[in-house]
Amino acid sequence: MTLTSVAQKYRQQSPLVFCLTNTVVTNFTANVLLASGAAPAMTNLPGEAGPFASVASAVLVNLGTPSTEQLRAMDEAIHGANEAGTPWVLDPVAVGALPVRTDFARKILAQRPTLIRGNASEILALSGRSSTGRGVDAKDTVQAAIEAGRELATDYGSVVAISGAADAIIDATRSVLVHSNGIGLTGITGGGCSLGAICAGMLAVSEDPFEAAIAAHGMYGLAAEKALAISRGPGSFAMAFLDELSAMDPEELQNLRLEEANNA
Amino acid sequence: MTLTSVAQKYRQQSPLVFCLTNTVVTNFTANVLLASGAAPAMTNLPGEAGPFASVASAVLVNLGTPSTEQLRAMDEAIHGANEAGTPWVLDPVAVGALPVRTDFARKILAQRPTLIRGNASEILALSGRSSTGRGVDAKDTVQAAIEAGRELATDYGSVVAISGAADAIIDATRSVLVHSNGIGLTGITGGGCSLGAICAGMLAVSEDPFEAAIAAHGMYGLAAEKALAISRGPGSFAMAFLDELSAMDPEELQNLRLEEANNA
Amino acid sequence: MTLTSVAQKYRQQSPLVFCLTNTVVTNFTANVLLASGAAPAMTNLPGEAGPFASVASAVLVNLGTPSTEQLRAMDEAIHGANEAGTPWVLDPVAVGALPVRTDFARKILAQRPTLIRGNASEILALSGRSSTGRGVDAKDTVQAAIEAGRELATDYGSVVAISGAADAIIDATRSVLVHSNGIGLTGITGGGCSLGAICAGMLAVSEDPFEAAIAAHGMYGLAAEKALAISRGPGSFAMAFLDELSAMDPEELQNLRLEEANNA
Repeated sequence: MTLTSVAQKYRQQSPLVFCLTNTVVTNFTANVLLASGAAPAMTNLPGEAGPFASVASAVLVNLGTPSTEQLRAMDEAIHGANEAGTPWVLDPVAVGALPVRTDFARKILAQRPTLIRGNASEILALSGRSSTGRGVDAKDTVQAAIEAGRELATDYGSVVAISGAADAIIDATRSVLVHSNGIGLTGITGGGCSLGAICAGMLAVSEDPFEAAIAAHGMYGLAAEKALAISRGPGSFAMAFLDELSAMDPEELQNLRLEEANNA
Repeated sequence: MTLTSVAQKYRQQSPLVFCLTNTVVTNFTANVLLASGAAPAMTNLPGEAGPFASVASAVLVNLGTPSTEQLRAMDEAIHGANEAGTPWVLDPVAVGALPVRTDFARKILAQRPTLIRGNASEILALSGRSSTGRGVDAKDTVQAAIEAGRELATDYGSVVAISGAADAIIDATRSVLVHSNGIGLTGITGGGCSLGAICAGMLAVSEDPFEAAIAAHGMYGLAAEKALAISRGPGSFAMAFLDELSAMDPEELQNLRLEEANNA
Repeated sequence: MTLTSVAQKYRQQSPLVFCLTNTVVTNFTANVLLASGAAPAMTNLPGEAGPFASVASAVLVNLGTPSTEQLRAMDEAIHGANEAGTPWVLDPVAVGALPVRTDFARKILAQRPTLIRGNASEILALSGRSSTGRGVDAKDTVQAAIEAGRELATDYGSVVAISGAADAIIDATRSVLVHSNGIGLTGITGGGCSLGAICAGMLAVSEDPFEAAIAAHGMYGLAAEKALAISRGPGSFAMAFLDELSAMDPEELQNLRLEEANNA
């Protein structure tokens, strides 16, 4: 499929994205999903997470602010998703910087996430390399994490997306850089976390997770570019970003600036 | 009282609405309550929820993302409210689609909520009928749920409000459709959940819960109509909606388009 | 240092503020920190909170919606902060009105918070005096709480900041009123809670917590004044406030209207 047809299918099918995510970005993530054309749904309760993962179109597991109970629900959701063949995304927020989620993230890697999305520091840490991150901040460049991303992609059969100045999308054999001016997204919270949710939704409508990841990053980055042009600070940017995401024509994905990525 | 005088009393008394609600909409719900003239307060802690329910003006129990601990707090809050004669609202989010909250919602029905607010699929599921919902989405029409709403109203002494293209308000003997263009509310998260909070506040200032529900839906829907007219997408709509809610003159409720509802 | 140089240092160093805060304001708090130039990070998990408090630049403990697990994480974070010499802020939300947090707040006072920020009712209640508050609302004047603030400052070595029409900043020997038109902040949720987060960040860049508190309140209040002038309601105010916070020139703090505070 072309990127445009992936985005069109997303709009038509309105995938139901089940998000187990952090308390900082729940509202923004749900609004981003709605604006992009998908349907958000959340529960963090064991006993609900498993069954729901098997009926949802896709699942997002974001490790931003786990509670003990949410970690159990995530375990359940991942098993439910895998049993039902539902695609799922792992967003390893602050992995490497904080111990409990780091152990948990490494453990669930064995469940083979369809897609892993993080910043360079998180991808480096997830692969067992040392990074210089301090929580949600990436202090490493995307280039520095491409080898780690390739390794994760190969070991776990996942597509790996690394967010940065340009976003790298990697699988076992392919790699591409998606260029867009996403600087406005670094000024608000949830810029990366909500992208993970759109990735999940795109996985639900495309046979090829690599292509789905590019479509998600493209739609997201183009909306961010357009929002930046009409905003005067982070408050008006967040508002304009939702407006632009909602107004976006899937045809615009034809203008996406893609480039072959090179290993570091 | 007229609808205008209910809304005026709401503004003058600024009811303290104790919300036990989901993590996706806490911020928006609090801002909606403030913009409308009420005072929000939240705690999800057993040991606090019971005592607080007895001093609050009204209580909202929204089942969007329950934790085990929040469910215990909800139980406590409902008993505290009933003992003190505090009105309370049940919002049965995704009941029918997710098992734990479905059992919980059916159990607390016996505590006779003052008002039940949901979409058609949730009201159908709560009444034990089958629905076609998939979480927070309503796939059923308001008309199709009116009989279920009447039954709940009769069995539990509740007012039942069903949100949709037009909103139906039902009690054991009366029913009315509140017309407004609320389409903008379907593009953001919390559009229904925050309405439940305003319903709770209105219950605190009116002797007649049926009238309180109409006033809440009217104020909410009129603000949504005005916001839609000046916004260009879901981001600017959410902002304009809070502005319009805050600026609304209670006299405007005289223009509300009401219609007798017919059973399906 | 001058207030301007404190604010400049804040912008240059981008302190990492670890927030254990309530579910209503997590998103707004993170966006306020980002807009002001700091870096937010959150976890509420025992096992993560202690280690993270020792590497963060500052810690915020906000008692708005504690869970049992979050209370344990707070305990851990406070001990981690104190062992590492990390400054921390206590925001005693609704203390006096709700029992569990009231006991907890009085207990952790013994851990000597670097700064305590609350409204007049909360400061009165924290000091053991009776207040007329009903949750997050202050029903007492700032003047009425200055003596209580001075006592807390003396007993626990803390700076005490009392938010109101003018904000009082108090330590064992000094007191000042910071004047600004912050009325817009009372129309949105998190207006006070997010100020506590900026206070934490300022503590990380100034040797003098009294001065840090003034700089935080000044930057915050001036941004609120400017936002009010260009907004038409609480929705547009919240957006403009983030824009103004981000655009603020630290030199503007030279225009801050300060006044010696008098005890009641």
